Amino acid sequence: MDDVLAHLDAHFDAHLDRVRAYVRQPSISGEGTGMVETAEMVRDSIRRLGGTAQIVPTPGWPVVHGEIHVGAPKTLLLYGMYDVQPVEGEDWMVPPFAGDVVDLPDVGPSVVARGVYNTKGPLAGQFNVLESIKAVRGRLPVNVKFVVEGEEELGSRHLPQFIEAYRSRLGADATYFAFYCQDRSGKPMLWLGVKGIQYFEVTCRGGAWGGPRTRGVHGSNAVWVGNPAWRLLQALTTMSDGAEQIKIDGFYDDVVPPSAEDEELLTRLAQTVDFDSELWKWDAGRFKYDAKGADLLRRYLYDPTLNIDGIWGGYTGSGMKTLLPHEVHVKMDVRMVPNMTPERVRERIRAHLKKIGRDDIHVHFHEGYPPAKTSVKEPAVQALIRTLRGMGHEPEIWPHLAGSAPFYLFRQVLGQPFVMGGLGHGGRPHSPNEYATVAGMRQFERSVAQFLFAFAED
Amino acid sequence: MDDVLAHLDAHFDAHLDRVRAYVRQPSISGEGTGMVETAEMVRDSIRRLGGTAQIVPTPGWPVVHGEIHVGAPKTLLLYGMYDVQPVEGEDWMVPPFAGDVVDLPDVGPSVVARGVYNTKGPLAGQFNVLESIKAVRGRLPVNVKFVVEGEEELGSRHLPQFIEAYRSRLGADATYFAFYCQDRSGKPMLWLGVKGIQYFEVTCRGGAWGGPRTRGVHGSNAVWVGNPAWRLLQALTTMSDGAEQIKIDGFYDDVVPPSAEDEELLTRLAQTVDFDSELWKWDAGRFKYDAKGADLLRRYLYDPTLNIDGIWGGYTGSGMKTLLPHEVHVKMDVRMVPNMTPERVRERIRAHLKKIGRDDIHVHFHEGYPPAKTSVKEPAVQALIRTLRGMGHEPEIWPHLAGSAPFYLFRQVLGQPFVMGGLGHGGRPHSPNEYATVAGMRQFERSVAQFLFAFAED
Repeated sequence: MDDVLAHLDAHFDAHLDRVRAYVRQPSISGEGTGMVETAEMVRDSIRRLGGTAQIVPTPGWPVVHGEIHVGAPKTLLLYGMYDVQPVEGEDWMVPPFAGDVVDLPDVGPSVVARGVYNTKGPLAGQFNVLESIKAVRGRLPVNVKFVVEGEEELGSRHLPQFIEAYRSRLGADATYFAFYCQDRSGKPMLWLGVKGIQYFEVTCRGGAWGGPRTRGVHGSNAVWVGNPAWRLLQALTTMSDGAEQIKIDGFYDDVVPPSAEDEELLTRLAQTVDFDSELWKWDAGRFKYDAKGADLLRRYLYDPTLNIDGIWGGYTGSGMKTLLPHEVHVKMDVRMVPNMTPERVRERIRAHLKKIGRDDIHVHFHEGYPPAKTSVKEPAVQALIRTLRGMGHEPEIWPHLAGSAPFYLFRQVLGQPFVMGGLGHGGRPHSPNEYATVAGMRQFERSVAQFLFAFAED
Repeated sequence: MDDVLAHLDAHFDAHLDRVRAYVRQPSISGEGTGMVETAEMVRDSIRRLGGTAQIVPTPGWPVVHGEIHVGAPKTLLLYGMYDVQPVEGEDWMVPPFAGDVVDLPDVGPSVVARGVYNTKGPLAGQFNVLESIKAVRGRLPVNVKFVVEGEEELGSRHLPQFIEAYRSRLGADATYFAFYCQDRSGKPMLWLGVKGIQYFEVTCRGGAWGGPRTRGVHGSNAVWVGNPAWRLLQALTTMSDGAEQIKIDGFYDDVVPPSAEDEELLTRLAQTVDFDSELWKWDAGRFKYDAKGADLLRRYLYDPTLNIDGIWGGYTGSGMKTLLPHEVHVKMDVRMVPNMTPERVRERIRAHLKKIGRDDIHVHFHEGYPPAKTSVKEPAVQALIRTLRGMGHEPEIWPHLAGSAPFYLFRQVLGQPFVMGGLGHGGRPHSPNEYATVAGMRQFERSVAQFLFAFAED
């Protein structure tokens, strides 16, 4: 491997430039900014490797599909995403699409840019690795297939359609999602799965129940005309106590306790997880449970969540305006733990609103998807663990991530084990000043290269 | 009076132009747009009448103070406001500051513009009336004093300071606030008072209790880090059931039942109020109480209200973004009925948050003021009633308005009776497509002219 690693090191400046070029190209799927340009960038990166690649249209943003067949015995499906979160309303230390390198306190020189951590840095870095291997060895150690979507931040709305349509061309021994997985102390984490997610938007408007129907009216009328804001707030607070418990009938019925394998991982995890570092990462002074150690982790990973992502309605400008608003909106999501399904979550939310007599409140469900998990025993997972150990890192193995990704498409639909990870460190996804360290990017490339060989040789 | 009325009619086109010129000049106190220009416009209108006038600075927007002393036995203090509500986020049929005349369904040709009803139309119309009287008669029948403030829509923040400082120059037999008071059927209303108001802004941020402290973080953390949106919503729903009852301890303690004089007015009112027209005006399908007639009016006028004017926090853009917000805001107001005071309202809200263990939630109180009322027996009120009857209209007399104005400054502080009204019709204050009818403006001018003489002769 020394030849490949030497090539990676020798070309790291150019490799870093590629990462910065990727983040400089905005690709905000929620707003439609730069999506086509970025899909073309991904397609061209695959073609530069000698692969076939095309931009596959969907009713939303396209998927980039590609393949490099080298006649190897093993095939790896490389899943990726080329879209990023909006930056609206965020206050950044540098322009979010400038790709600036900033010497950050605590972590050192880092690219500070929207998407560098989640996940254009790993995506561009993976192309760097494949180019270096090809330059040194002439060909890759495995056949690779690419599925790079542009709607991950929109809940992967149209990925299921694509997977169905391209099913016959997506056969592989495993799916891999490259990601910077070291915490700020350098400890790499390895997640064996993801939670599911159901995102939805709730709107309460004036109507037959009362309230102004088409426009906000003078606030003095609140004394005798209903306020949709109060109606919505009352309905929402019947759905959750806001801290520990969701109060929707049957919400916990499908939740299963951790498996024996997961309990073993939890026990081990509790010894190594740096809970203070987690609080630091998420800018919080305390967790919302009094639980500690494995108990806290069990709640973190196995409690479903009903979150308020955003809320707005009425007068939100400066100064005073007395107004009785005619509509109020809230964006929410449910994170699903193993055995929950989006279908049942949707049913239960609808049934709850009906039960409390508030089915006039409109709920628009975005595409949702269930959780997905791979066993730690899978060869692809073991190849990544071996790689990290070979580089001197004992990975912290998590039963799954608290976050979501549509891995059920690979695990449940295509029937492939999947693995995610790699060295590298980043932070503040979906937040201002999202970053990834330059030193971590270098380690990321070395780890991905070695993982590919470890997987091939397995 | 025929000479004055003939002059008003002959010059009505020019008078309408003046109303349109006033609304074309934006004066959004909440945003600071055009405030100085509008104060100058008011000052110049008074000077054109031969009065003295100056723009009196305050820590906020200035007050225009003026006087026309004609040596008459009686003096009237003309209160007015030159500021208007913001138009942010509103969808208008015509630009809100164009002063366009639109033939509206139901009501006919109308100026559709921000502030034309509330209350630049009456302000400009009053200057028209004074000019016509002066042109025909050489001098006004009463001495007049002007107090035209620029912060009515901000809760008249600095008017108390001005009134204190100018107290000795504001002596008068009564205060008059010109206003279009006919409903769309032509019936004039006469309100003997106003409710008080306490506007405030509530912010819930991450802090010692939990939650992200300085930035929104990835939504997946909602499983173990508290969400300020849930915390705020839970706190708010302990304050009101959202429909009929405020649940803050002692909130109703100061409320007194209607006086005997008011009960008499309520009984008469219940016969003439067009409740369907009220629902139409406020764009609602039903009232929030099952009460009818005098019972409904009693609640409308004597129930205090806790209203949500606006709420916002987290991700409010298009599409999906999973976010755990670090702060959520709400704008609220309390409308106070007779005998309530802003001081006690503020104390009780603070005590409530403390009682429920949520005094980390930050409350910023804007200036508030108490309700104010005048007896129907006051000569100034009787002069207006006589004027309206003389013009063939039986006024519908209300104990007070559901809305608020800082009339306590005239009633309680200066010790003057006050009266508000005039013919004319407008609607949709604080809403898109605020309007006032052209025909109503003509009647308004005739009514104000005759009121001035009736008041003088009393």
